Amino acid sequence: MSQATNQSWGGRFSEPTDAFVARFTASVTFDQRLARQDIQGSIAHATMLARVGVLTDDERDTIITGLTEIQGEIERGEFNWSVPLEDVHMNIEARLTDKIGITGKKLHTGRSRNDQVATDIRLFMRDEIDVIEVELKRLRKGMIELADREAETIMPGFTHLQTAQPVTFGHHLLAWQEMLARDHERLLDCRKRVNVMPLGAAALAGTTYPIDRHVSAELLGFDRPTENSLDAVSDRDFAIEFTSFASILLMHLSRMSEELVLWTSAQFNFIDLPDRFCTGSSIMPQKKNPDVPELVRGKTGRVYGHLMALLTLMKSQPLAYNKDNQEDKEPLFDTVDTVRDCLKAFADMVPAIEPKKASMYEAARRGFSTATDLADYLVRKGVAFRDAHEIVGQSVAYGLKTEKDLSEMSLDELKQFSATIEQDVFDVLTLEGSVAARNHIGGTAPNQVRAAAQRAREALAALKAGA
Amino acid sequence: MSQATNQSWGGRFSEPTDAFVARFTASVTFDQRLARQDIQGSIAHATMLARVGVLTDDERDTIITGLTEIQGEIERGEFNWSVPLEDVHMNIEARLTDKIGITGKKLHTGRSRNDQVATDIRLFMRDEIDVIEVELKRLRKGMIELADREAETIMPGFTHLQTAQPVTFGHHLLAWQEMLARDHERLLDCRKRVNVMPLGAAALAGTTYPIDRHVSAELLGFDRPTENSLDAVSDRDFAIEFTSFASILLMHLSRMSEELVLWTSAQFNFIDLPDRFCTGSSIMPQKKNPDVPELVRGKTGRVYGHLMALLTLMKSQPLAYNKDNQEDKEPLFDTVDTVRDCLKAFADMVPAIEPKKASMYEAARRGFSTATDLADYLVRKGVAFRDAHEIVGQSVAYGLKTEKDLSEMSLDELKQFSATIEQDVFDVLTLEGSVAARNHIGGTAPNQVRAAAQRAREALAALKAGA
Amino acid sequence: MSQATNQSWGGRFSEPTDAFVARFTASVTFDQRLARQDIQGSIAHATMLARVGVLTDDERDTIITGLTEIQGEIERGEFNWSVPLEDVHMNIEARLTDKIGITGKKLHTGRSRNDQVATDIRLFMRDEIDVIEVELKRLRKGMIELADREAETIMPGFTHLQTAQPVTFGHHLLAWQEMLARDHERLLDCRKRVNVMPLGAAALAGTTYPIDRHVSAELLGFDRPTENSLDAVSDRDFAIEFTSFASILLMHLSRMSEELVLWTSAQFNFIDLPDRFCTGSSIMPQKKNPDVPELVRGKTGRVYGHLMALLTLMKSQPLAYNKDNQEDKEPLFDTVDTVRDCLKAFADMVPAIEPKKASMYEAARRGFSTATDLADYLVRKGVAFRDAHEIVGQSVAYGLKTEKDLSEMSLDELKQFSATIEQDVFDVLTLEGSVAARNHIGGTAPNQVRAAAQRAREALAALKAGA
Amino acid sequence: MSQATNQSWGGRFSEPTDAFVARFTASVTFDQRLARQDIQGSIAHATMLARVGVLTDDERDTIITGLTEIQGEIERGEFNWSVPLEDVHMNIEARLTDKIGITGKKLHTGRSRNDQVATDIRLFMRDEIDVIEVELKRLRKGMIELADREAETIMPGFTHLQTAQPVTFGHHLLAWQEMLARDHERLLDCRKRVNVMPLGAAALAGTTYPIDRHVSAELLGFDRPTENSLDAVSDRDFAIEFTSFASILLMHLSRMSEELVLWTSAQFNFIDLPDRFCTGSSIMPQKKNPDVPELVRGKTGRVYGHLMALLTLMKSQPLAYNKDNQEDKEPLFDTVDTVRDCLKAFADMVPAIEPKKASMYEAARRGFSTATDLADYLVRKGVAFRDAHEIVGQSVAYGLKTEKDLSEMSLDELKQFSATIEQDVFDVLTLEGSVAARNHIGGTAPNQVRAAAQRAREALAALKAGA
Repeated sequence: MSQATNQSWGGRFSEPTDAFVARFTASVTFDQRLARQDIQGSIAHATMLARVGVLTDDERDTIITGLTEIQGEIERGEFNWSVPLEDVHMNIEARLTDKIGITGKKLHTGRSRNDQVATDIRLFMRDEIDVIEVELKRLRKGMIELADREAETIMPGFTHLQTAQPVTFGHHLLAWQEMLARDHERLLDCRKRVNVMPLGAAALAGTTYPIDRHVSAELLGFDRPTENSLDAVSDRDFAIEFTSFASILLMHLSRMSEELVLWTSAQFNFIDLPDRFCTGSSIMPQKKNPDVPELVRGKTGRVYGHLMALLTLMKSQPLAYNKDNQEDKEPLFDTVDTVRDCLKAFADMVPAIEPKKASMYEAARRGFSTATDLADYLVRKGVAFRDAHEIVGQSVAYGLKTEKDLSEMSLDELKQFSATIEQDVFDVLTLEGSVAARNHIGGTAPNQVRAAAQRAREALAALKAGA
Repeated sequence: MSQATNQSWGGRFSEPTDAFVARFTASVTFDQRLARQDIQGSIAHATMLARVGVLTDDERDTIITGLTEIQGEIERGEFNWSVPLEDVHMNIEARLTDKIGITGKKLHTGRSRNDQVATDIRLFMRDEIDVIEVELKRLRKGMIELADREAETIMPGFTHLQTAQPVTFGHHLLAWQEMLARDHERLLDCRKRVNVMPLGAAALAGTTYPIDRHVSAELLGFDRPTENSLDAVSDRDFAIEFTSFASILLMHLSRMSEELVLWTSAQFNFIDLPDRFCTGSSIMPQKKNPDVPELVRGKTGRVYGHLMALLTLMKSQPLAYNKDNQEDKEPLFDTVDTVRDCLKAFADMVPAIEPKKASMYEAARRGFSTATDLADYLVRKGVAFRDAHEIVGQSVAYGLKTEKDLSEMSLDELKQFSATIEQDVFDVLTLEGSVAARNHIGGTAPNQVRAAAQRAREALAALKAGA
Repeated sequence: MSQATNQSWGGRFSEPTDAFVARFTASVTFDQRLARQDIQGSIAHATMLARVGVLTDDERDTIITGLTEIQGEIERGEFNWSVPLEDVHMNIEARLTDKIGITGKKLHTGRSRNDQVATDIRLFMRDEIDVIEVELKRLRKGMIELADREAETIMPGFTHLQTAQPVTFGHHLLAWQEMLARDHERLLDCRKRVNVMPLGAAALAGTTYPIDRHVSAELLGFDRPTENSLDAVSDRDFAIEFTSFASILLMHLSRMSEELVLWTSAQFNFIDLPDRFCTGSSIMPQKKNPDVPELVRGKTGRVYGHLMALLTLMKSQPLAYNKDNQEDKEPLFDTVDTVRDCLKAFADMVPAIEPKKASMYEAARRGFSTATDLADYLVRKGVAFRDAHEIVGQSVAYGLKTEKDLSEMSLDELKQFSATIEQDVFDVLTLEGSVAARNHIGGTAPNQVRAAAQRAREALAALKAGA
Repeated sequence: MSQATNQSWGGRFSEPTDAFVARFTASVTFDQRLARQDIQGSIAHATMLARVGVLTDDERDTIITGLTEIQGEIERGEFNWSVPLEDVHMNIEARLTDKIGITGKKLHTGRSRNDQVATDIRLFMRDEIDVIEVELKRLRKGMIELADREAETIMPGFTHLQTAQPVTFGHHLLAWQEMLARDHERLLDCRKRVNVMPLGAAALAGTTYPIDRHVSAELLGFDRPTENSLDAVSDRDFAIEFTSFASILLMHLSRMSEELVLWTSAQFNFIDLPDRFCTGSSIMPQKKNPDVPELVRGKTGRVYGHLMALLTLMKSQPLAYNKDNQEDKEPLFDTVDTVRDCLKAFADMVPAIEPKKASMYEAARRGFSTATDLADYLVRKGVAFRDAHEIVGQSVAYGLKTEKDLSEMSLDELKQFSATIEQDVFDVLTLEGSVAARNHIGGTAPNQVRAAAQRAREALAALKAGA
């Protein structure tokens, strides 16, 4: 970072900024990430200014050529960012004036850094949302295909981490997929509110130049200009809403991660993760640690924290722009990066999950997982549900004492608890019978899982076409 | 609360629940608030069960009659809630069995408390969202009408709480209204994801009874049944999403509150709040405190806290239902109540705000608020914007020293800084000229404010028709 | 709640408070919980006022008698709380004036509700901290004794939820106890900052009456009066600090809960929790759910949320008292209740944990848990650590392929990987040898665990004496 | 960052780490900040190992020389950090082995990265706490001295941002100082819990080498070794506790910032901040924005967010180390930097605050700020406080109507409301009389302010000596 002294607002000041204060209040160390969008916005602004006659066509062309060259300098790493120039906007403008002289100074006509930065962030967010959506689709697709392949793989379903009823692994994966489908909806709902243009709000009240905001909006691909200039420069809802989307997404990924970590433990032993997604220990040579899901789970807090940071930031801020708002960028940038990386990690990893089917099946077979089926059997024989529940409860107590699963008891043993039980009870006590019987929309029966996978596939494809 | 000992799951247990544990794990003290929705869901469930032949029509009618009577007992405060019966579901079911005997026990066929509570909360949230929407519309409407009335009232616009440029009070109010318009959109987006039916997911895997979930969904007014049973009983996204909506809304109300508090201070003296929205001091007889906005501002933390509570609750929870989830209700209920009360307080108060126009005008007149207009004037005379900025900065420095606003300087004084300045400069240095010149969509010119109010009115009316 | 209209500040108002506003801004529905402390504070205040001559001794006695009677009315549930009287302070004062006439009005001399409520909350917090400390000690004690009993019980130690090295169950329990020991320190550090007296700060600036704050402080058991009146009425640090203590404590309890839930799963099967701490399922008769740890884990979010609520509440509040501060009580009360209940639940439950030793031992035996011991063995034979690590890594890869634990391989098989390995290797590959070898302060060797338990016992006893 | 392929744990793996996964799970991009502490810890570890005979003295010296050289390379920016080597520990160890050969591999004897990183962070935190304490002391000192100088400067005291009673500016500054005094205590309490040594816990269970942890602790300046190895590698309480300290501190700075921003507004006009702490506007030439306090206020959210991130991170983590924990560093580092910068900004700025005394005085003179004094006057004349309050309330209502402050009314006018009022009332209605009368510990009387400043000065000096 070079040192420079000229500033965009020095006229009324009698004393230069303290060196520490200059560093403390500067944002260029992080907002230079918005350079591409800043230049994109400036080109649209210059084009609009020429359209309404504030710039000549020559001035516009000179500005656009200069900005395009600067873009190249930045991409090639040749641009010299200066902290005394405070932010990305002034750095680029100063360089433009270096290059093209006085015409460069005209670019700022009819706008302010307040609407400029608001526009840059929205352009940036729109770009990033689109990248994130690609990864999210890839992950959803991988999950759906794996679910379809594993539609008949039986595993124990848990509530309270206690064996509850047998389910299929495909059904479990589609539960994950449903979470992501909602995240996807929320992302697209958020995008609608991102894609609105603040440019033209100027410092806070609009501008006296004859600008045409519809032109700029169209040039930049925004759905419409914002309705109110004071709101436009102070609104950070979209950042909070995005971070809220991200928090719920990471919450979902943390839930999946928790299960992946459990499943790779020796105790569960339900799946294998390929070595390439794991790391080892510097001291314990036998270790193969599920680092990727653990790290994703750990990153949940990071994103929750950024959500809280942004909500706190905006609490009680009077209109319009306050310097506090400069603090919006780092949490937002880090949220974007975290979301993108975590989705990529999962989109790579999920299709590579290898279920250990025998181990899953054996776990489901133990633990009285068909107790509900026995109760349902009794109800079908005319017993009221609550009574059936009591009968099965006693059978389980007996099973715990004798170390027998329900399916391992003899008919006579079962008849101790209800005379209604007949030989046909053993059909409902198999795992296959149990899962197949849950045969309605949303149920775990293999044909329901396949149908649900197909619906999910179509919904995702429809989204692809429509978005 | 009476003590009782029968429970819905005692069969396999060898020891009764510890008394403290029974109290600690019971939810009936707060989930009784879901009684109406619980009965509504049970009636639909019984109706569906009869439709598919699991119950006879007589059984259905007996159940519905019993539930309807219980609803009456609850409304009349005659219902005896029991902690040992744990929750609202078991309390109502036990009472039903008391009333109608063994048929009451059949109601739980094909469902579980897991899908039952998930359904109850969604019905509850849908009801509350609709109530909240009414208040939100009322507040938006009040704000739009006040803005229209005050389209020409001039006040200082601030950035960094420093006088920046003159704006109109109507424009400022419409900035607030834009915040609420986005909240409104988010509320309706959230409602879509609330209005999906988990009933039929049973404990976690679906049920072996021949249920028809589309029938139940239609009876209950849900858009569709959920796609996956494991997800259905564990999903609390809608609660987090609602609380996220509420957090952003409260953030907006905290910003408005901050300004109301500032404006009622002796230092600003911009508005009067009627006495009925204020309270006094037990020790200082002269005080009239803006309690309502202060309290709303204070409630922001409450809602942020509930958002964090729910996000933390769901972090890393494996599928499907875990007891942790019982902790979702209190934060959600309190968020609902807080949002409704705060909106009501604002919807009552905002139309009663009395601007002190002279005081606002005087504040705008001081503080060099038309400095930007002078710079723009110079640009129109051919000076590059950055140079014009420098010239005006020097004029302001002179004004600070001589204690003169720009409009109070003579032409000769102004000409010291730029020979370009002529007599016509004084037109742009008036407040009225300044605001009128910001005449584009989103700008503060009175006719733009009126047009924006009209668009907002129409958008709100369209929403009314469409929702 | 009765309706009443007289208020403590009506003089300068031209319009009564709106009914909804009265309800919205009233705090008596929750702050009546401070009644005992409010009366305690008032008695001390009256005593001090008499000591300095502002009240006569007769007036003081009349006031104290009246307050004591009111205390009785409240305890017997005979007190009629009134919302229009706003808060606990005005309710009690109004009742006092009803009872003793004009003398009652003199009690408020030299104080304000601002310092009164600040004093009440600190008295309340001090009381609650002392109750919480009793439960915390009971839990620590139970944990230490269980650890001592289980000093030789071997279980697998995990990192990344992968079997790492054998540890003893007692060592694991003492890890939990260390967390609580730090919480205990934090609680006592917080208590120091709670136990300071704001009374005498009056509304914000102190009072013109000749009060003696040292007298009041001594009467109320406070360490000292606060140093600054503006700070005294606006400081809520102690509430945040307590909630921060509570958040870390609940985080610890959530970690223990997570492990208890894992350990009671069929997959781990490490412990049994007595039935009295578990509940069942309304639909699955075989279930025995670890509700207590799950619910405690769920309550973590609740407390984190309250911490965030209080931090948000105080953010950017100007001095001195603002109505926002009324929002401090509910999060604080709920945090106190949650902490007390969760500690009680754990203090009851932990000593009742029944380890399934055979199951723990078997889990430790599998999974190459002594791989590090083999590496250390090689190092002692002169191999550099990093090379030893590589050798053992290859042995484990061989074991995975041949399904043999290290201790199950023959000497020849082991020698494939390093010629240095001799017959004595089998001593270090036993679980007992492995744990016994970690024989330094903080290590898992049984005699270290017993010594650590003894040190913990003494530290806790010393604390008892000293606190 | 160079690419390398050797890793510290490759033996049991059949597939290399995925390139993205290697980048995703690596921490060296941020944990290289711990290099100095890592080397410091390694030198102590090697010294201890030689002391107990695990290393020879020659080996120790070779290692220390190598590490010292590496420290130099890092300081001179010559060190080549490698992402495939994952973290700071492996980077330094690999470089050491490059330099000194096989002896370098012996350094890791008797420790693991788990206890190594825990030790590094604690050393780092201790260093940073000490730096932060220096800034905190400087700020407190500056505040005390300014308060002493301004002990007689009268300004309005506010509650609800409404003029309440006159106070002195010195008194207000000492209220700020009290907040910081509590922060200071909390920082030192936190330091106690930071300064404990995890080294020796190894991976999780301790080590089989004959280490002497008391020796290492002494060499590194730790108060004692940790008591339990499982706890030692998983404990991050100190990070949360520090972030909690930081959150409360930033909350305080946000409150001061809010007041500074208000006071520099044209409406309050209470103080001037030197130009060097302010910045201007790119579009509005007249602006002088209080950027430093605004930015500090904005940074509050950042720190709150980090607190929430760390609490979420640790929620429900089973023992002992999990990869999630890697996420502790960035929030902690950023909190440290934010705290240090914000304290520096304030420590520089506060002594440079220039009160505008006339403006403060005039603001206090208006707004019935002596109404409480009138009430107290009446009480001294025998009127009960509540009745006096009512009388003054009526006087204020009259004043509002006639636009007269209490001190501007004639005796006859005042006597309308109470015949008790005499000529001597005007003594209590002056601002000087009002503040001087609040003459008790904690009160705003100038001599109390001076005494409080002296006590604060002494407390701070005592702390200096003792810490």
